Amino acid sequence: MSGALYFDDIQVGDRFESQPCTMSMDEILDFASKYDPQPFHLDEETARESIFGGLVASGWHTAAVTMRLLISSNPFAGGLIGSAVEIRWERPTRPGDDISVFTEVIERRPHRSRTDRGVIVIRAETRNGDGEVLQSLISRFLIERRSFDLASSARSSGSAL
Amino acid sequence: MSGALYFDDIQVGDRFESQPCTMSMDEILDFASKYDPQPFHLDEETARESIFGGLVASGWHTAAVTMRLLISSNPFAGGLIGSAVEIRWERPTRPGDDISVFTEVIERRPHRSRTDRGVIVIRAETRNGDGEVLQSLISRFLIERRSFDLASSARSSGSAL
Repeated sequence: MSGALYFDDIQVGDRFESQPCTMSMDEILDFASKYDPQPFHLDEETARESIFGGLVASGWHTAAVTMRLLISSNPFAGGLIGSAVEIRWERPTRPGDDISVFTEVIERRPHRSRTDRGVIVIRAETRNGDGEVLQSLISRFLIERRSFDLASSARSSGSAL
Repeated sequence: MSGALYFDDIQVGDRFESQPCTMSMDEILDFASKYDPQPFHLDEETARESIFGGLVASGWHTAAVTMRLLISSNPFAGGLIGSAVEIRWERPTRPGDDISVFTEVIERRPHRSRTDRGVIVIRAETRNGDGEVLQSLISRFLIERRSFDLASSARSSGSAL
């Protein structure tokens, strides 16, 4: 499929797989120092004594990288606009992990009030190089409808709609 | 209360309020370029034509800053280790918004298998300077029990436990 995917193009059961991304120690430390400055995300020695037995990435960092991988692997029209998510962190993400995101569309419905968008719900598993699930995400996204795109084009060409 | 809070110290109904934090345009662009590179998070002009009517922060950025504010306002023993969260983004976060996090403990129970940790569930609202809720978060955390801290001290003093 070339070009962007509209709500109209998406079916329950559709699957997407991202490219892998290596979680570098530098990026883990950078994210944690800004947003989740806890010892088990910042200091190897302290982390060894922690519940994790070693330095691990912030779960929010895993979630943020998952978002980047979702965007690059799911070219939805109008972008990925999330309104609600559920996250489970099943295992910690560790420095050097090659993570990929495996997505499946599990629900698809018109929006309650907006005629220009549909709602899809995806389940996305973020896995390490051994296929172990690090994070499970269920996310609801607003996706542009093809019909809206035509109306939108009409508006931007000068219609006073 | 001075010092860290243990599971044993926490009650359902306990409330915490963070300091405010200003969401700067620079930080919004930096986060979005790394983790959520979509036009409505990166380019003011394109964002004006988007569903948001202007540039907005990535929801994941709001979530990450919420985590930082949670850490600085809730001094739990052993840190904040999340295992599962639900997030709703109620309103977009915009450049210049002063955000604060208002937290309430809504559940508290022993851990199913670990005797060294308890589980607490919090509801955290991230609000802008006008008191509008930008994000609602429900999060489960593992919190150290005071009794475990004593056992841990025994171990690190040389016990072969």
